[in-house]
Amino acid sequence: MKLPRGLSQAAFDAAIARFSQVVGAEWTFTSEEDVELYRDAYSPFHGEDEELVASAALAPDSVEQVREIVRIANDHRVPLYPISTGRNLGYGGSAPTLSGSVVLDLRRMNRILEVNETNAYALVEPGVSYFDLYRHLRAHGHKLWIDTPDPGWGSLIGNAMDRGGGYTAASYRNHFDAHCGMELVLPNGELMRTGMGAMPNAQTWQQYKAGFGPWIDGMFSQSNFGICTKMGFWLMPEPEAYLAGTVSVRRFDDLMPLVDLVSHLENAGIVNGMPLFGCPLTNPTLVPAEEVRKPLDAEVAAVFGKPGGPSHADLEALCRQRGVGMWACRLQFYGPEEVIRAQWRHAQKKLAAIAGAWFTDDAYYDLPLTDAQADKSHKVTFGIPNLNIFFIGARSEHIPQPTQGHIWFAPIIPRSGAEIFKAQQVFEQAARELGLLAVPLSVAATYWNRAFIYIFGFAVTHDVEQNRRMRESYRKLVAIAAEHCWGEYRTAPAFQDAVMATYSFNEHALLRFHETIKDAIDPNGILAPGRYGIWPKHLRQQG
Amino acid sequence: MKLPRGLSQAAFDAAIARFSQVVGAEWTFTSEEDVELYRDAYSPFHGEDEELVASAALAPDSVEQVREIVRIANDHRVPLYPISTGRNLGYGGSAPTLSGSVVLDLRRMNRILEVNETNAYALVEPGVSYFDLYRHLRAHGHKLWIDTPDPGWGSLIGNAMDRGGGYTAASYRNHFDAHCGMELVLPNGELMRTGMGAMPNAQTWQQYKAGFGPWIDGMFSQSNFGICTKMGFWLMPEPEAYLAGTVSVRRFDDLMPLVDLVSHLENAGIVNGMPLFGCPLTNPTLVPAEEVRKPLDAEVAAVFGKPGGPSHADLEALCRQRGVGMWACRLQFYGPEEVIRAQWRHAQKKLAAIAGAWFTDDAYYDLPLTDAQADKSHKVTFGIPNLNIFFIGARSEHIPQPTQGHIWFAPIIPRSGAEIFKAQQVFEQAARELGLLAVPLSVAATYWNRAFIYIFGFAVTHDVEQNRRMRESYRKLVAIAAEHCWGEYRTAPAFQDAVMATYSFNEHALLRFHETIKDAIDPNGILAPGRYGIWPKHLRQQG
Repeated sequence: MKLPRGLSQAAFDAAIARFSQVVGAEWTFTSEEDVELYRDAYSPFHGEDEELVASAALAPDSVEQVREIVRIANDHRVPLYPISTGRNLGYGGSAPTLSGSVVLDLRRMNRILEVNETNAYALVEPGVSYFDLYRHLRAHGHKLWIDTPDPGWGSLIGNAMDRGGGYTAASYRNHFDAHCGMELVLPNGELMRTGMGAMPNAQTWQQYKAGFGPWIDGMFSQSNFGICTKMGFWLMPEPEAYLAGTVSVRRFDDLMPLVDLVSHLENAGIVNGMPLFGCPLTNPTLVPAEEVRKPLDAEVAAVFGKPGGPSHADLEALCRQRGVGMWACRLQFYGPEEVIRAQWRHAQKKLAAIAGAWFTDDAYYDLPLTDAQADKSHKVTFGIPNLNIFFIGARSEHIPQPTQGHIWFAPIIPRSGAEIFKAQQVFEQAARELGLLAVPLSVAATYWNRAFIYIFGFAVTHDVEQNRRMRESYRKLVAIAAEHCWGEYRTAPAFQDAVMATYSFNEHALLRFHETIKDAIDPNGILAPGRYGIWPKHLRQQG
Repeated sequence: MKLPRGLSQAAFDAAIARFSQVVGAEWTFTSEEDVELYRDAYSPFHGEDEELVASAALAPDSVEQVREIVRIANDHRVPLYPISTGRNLGYGGSAPTLSGSVVLDLRRMNRILEVNETNAYALVEPGVSYFDLYRHLRAHGHKLWIDTPDPGWGSLIGNAMDRGGGYTAASYRNHFDAHCGMELVLPNGELMRTGMGAMPNAQTWQQYKAGFGPWIDGMFSQSNFGICTKMGFWLMPEPEAYLAGTVSVRRFDDLMPLVDLVSHLENAGIVNGMPLFGCPLTNPTLVPAEEVRKPLDAEVAAVFGKPGGPSHADLEALCRQRGVGMWACRLQFYGPEEVIRAQWRHAQKKLAAIAGAWFTDDAYYDLPLTDAQADKSHKVTFGIPNLNIFFIGARSEHIPQPTQGHIWFAPIIPRSGAEIFKAQQVFEQAARELGLLAVPLSVAATYWNRAFIYIFGFAVTHDVEQNRRMRESYRKLVAIAAEHCWGEYRTAPAFQDAVMATYSFNEHALLRFHETIKDAIDPNGILAPGRYGIWPKHLRQQG
């Protein structure tokens, strides 16, 4: 077992004894087999000395227990690493950012404290998963949707605090932006509520975000400034209907007006679902079934295998021959039937400005879906949590070379077709040089309005040498992206220092500001040291 | 002239001499007549010793000058009070929160640094007014709207930092939420950029808000933690058309389902304009012209003057007789014609669930408006800045008793008809007891999605005794509201301590947190001491 840095076994045992008095022996985990469960299943350091591992774990059941644990941690200088459910695989899971930390596992705090159907919000504790809230809403007949990531076993609060995203309408996909009101235990054990929650008993805690004076919620996301013990979420009223249609364009350069026009439709609120951009040659999920005339395989591989790569004309010809677009974008709409049909008609009118563009009606459903319809669908599009993603993910038998996990590299790049072309070039070349798998002609994800995220997966294995190369490649890619001013929006603990270092404006003024805050509110540095590159003073000085 | 507390004239003069070297003598204002211009025109302490007044003012022209001024202020312990344009009348104007502060007037920093039409955003300096940006967009033919408050002479940055609001589509009305990316000079003179701005030269600064690690933007709003020198704003693409329609209901209790159904339409994104709720008897702007059968005057006054006040039946009868609703709500829609017509039809279908509800088509315009149409319109509804509000406001000849100004009291109350009824009772009774003017049957403003703001104006005069009573009444109303858990969202400096004191959860944990931050990042307490109730240590200790 790894002890917290600077603590003797005796000192650690003394702290554990006090923790145990707070949560009870059965919720104090110190045996090797129990602590093993808190390892990061997707750790890029699997089995190496650098693997980030806990010394112990505690599972409190109440805010008062959390406060008491934090006070004891300060007394004994024990680093605590709070997790909500620890399911953010690819982003660290349940392992701490500093080995030897005690994991504060909030899964037992899983109460759904309030659901208000009329005003469409919920107030939950950190242990509440997407599944939990979904089932609760269904069981009580609430006509409210959740917005869930793939997969749905994680915590609403955990995902929001990590600034994760989902798949339904625009104003709900950004999980942090869709929150309203927090309760936090601060690193000194104080309990604080933000926004209208600071007004005792205010019913408006989940109705107005900012309250009075500084609006501080954001500083607790992707940070180590506090432990969130309650959070409100704005929920989407169940829409009447769903419509999806695809626009396809013929020429390579048509991606540029396609991106601009779709951005306009989103910014004007005419498209509220997530636009799915792609090249139908390499992104088969974008090809409506009836349009696929030939299998996508050897022929495509041959074109991409041409010495020097395919020309635009090669690609356009192949797409023409197959009857698919060089690029396509699936637009999705949620709302009353006559509204979303009008929105889709309007979108087609606008997009017809691209010469040769054509349109396909992909799907229309009255909502709620029947079970049979849901089974055939990408469930998260309809706010239905599930674990299907694991069927095609790491360790699956359905991918050519099963791995042990993955880590995402996903920088924010400018929202334009020209920048997509640049990113394709830069990242495809980097992938060749670094020996990585890259899907050619990837476009970007649009979880967030107005932003493009270029997503790239790295395989994690149990082979030390492979993982070492992977980490090296990841760091190289962070640097290559930063050279082009593309910055990662979220990353695994292994790379948080490296990514934070690229946000370096004015000699890292932002990080230095975070450090000033950290020292002021957590002088003993007990809360999640190192998370998102923010180290407490005593660990910074040691380097 | 009032000197900064604790500074001798000689020490002050020495600081001014150094400031003057930075900005030049012509932009260093110390004469009485110059400093007089920075008085709060709507001060509730007009001419009294407590009036908040500056000692001097400085008008830098660049970020480097701002940084240098801040460093000098630290050397000499001179409190600085930054203003963007100082036009937030009713919220303190250009006067500091601590008398004797030096006003840092950023009006000369009025560059529009970037407008991106395709991605619909602008990057501006603090001196840029709504008029400035509007004219720039028109002059360059950009099909982009701004969202402006009444009136439009203020600063985009100033209004956003105060968390003000406007009148167009939902996602643009909350001016702080519509910002993306900030540059700040910190109280120690450091320059910092937030979000993607921390990645040097990132083109995505105005495309993705949160960047990497803690998202700290919110803490700089309604605070004294930094001086904003650049801010990005998401702009609304010019919509194709505008439609307004009114739903009217017959019975007093119909307000409850009316509020719930309109909230649903907003939360579902079907209504994107600001809903205007009211009682047509007392809020004549809600009555479509053709519906007004009789003048609104003596008869209404007589009904309200009945001993014990009118019964619901009295009110319903009067409304029936006049052919107006007991309550009405004007719904507004921005978008392509066929979409907004479908949205309005759908809204009517939903609202018809209220027995006896009827509907009026108020307006439809293809956009942009002609000049003649704009002249007849509530211009801010169309993102057109103007100063018309002064025509009906304080000092106008068009109100029965012209005053010198006003101060708003505007708590956030729960979004329900039942709470509106409670607020009407509580505030109308308070108004009677305190001798205030109150419009009977006021409903709430809906600048922000999901929140209700109950707005109440207090007249400011140049009569010391009247102002004294007004301040007393204001404080009483703050307390009465807090008893009902209704909290003010923003207030004038005179009342910031009083309001902050009502946000008292867990022995003022939130304010104590702010104070910890303040002491850490502004140890000399030079930046806007007292703003939003946050005092630096040396002034807290003195009480």
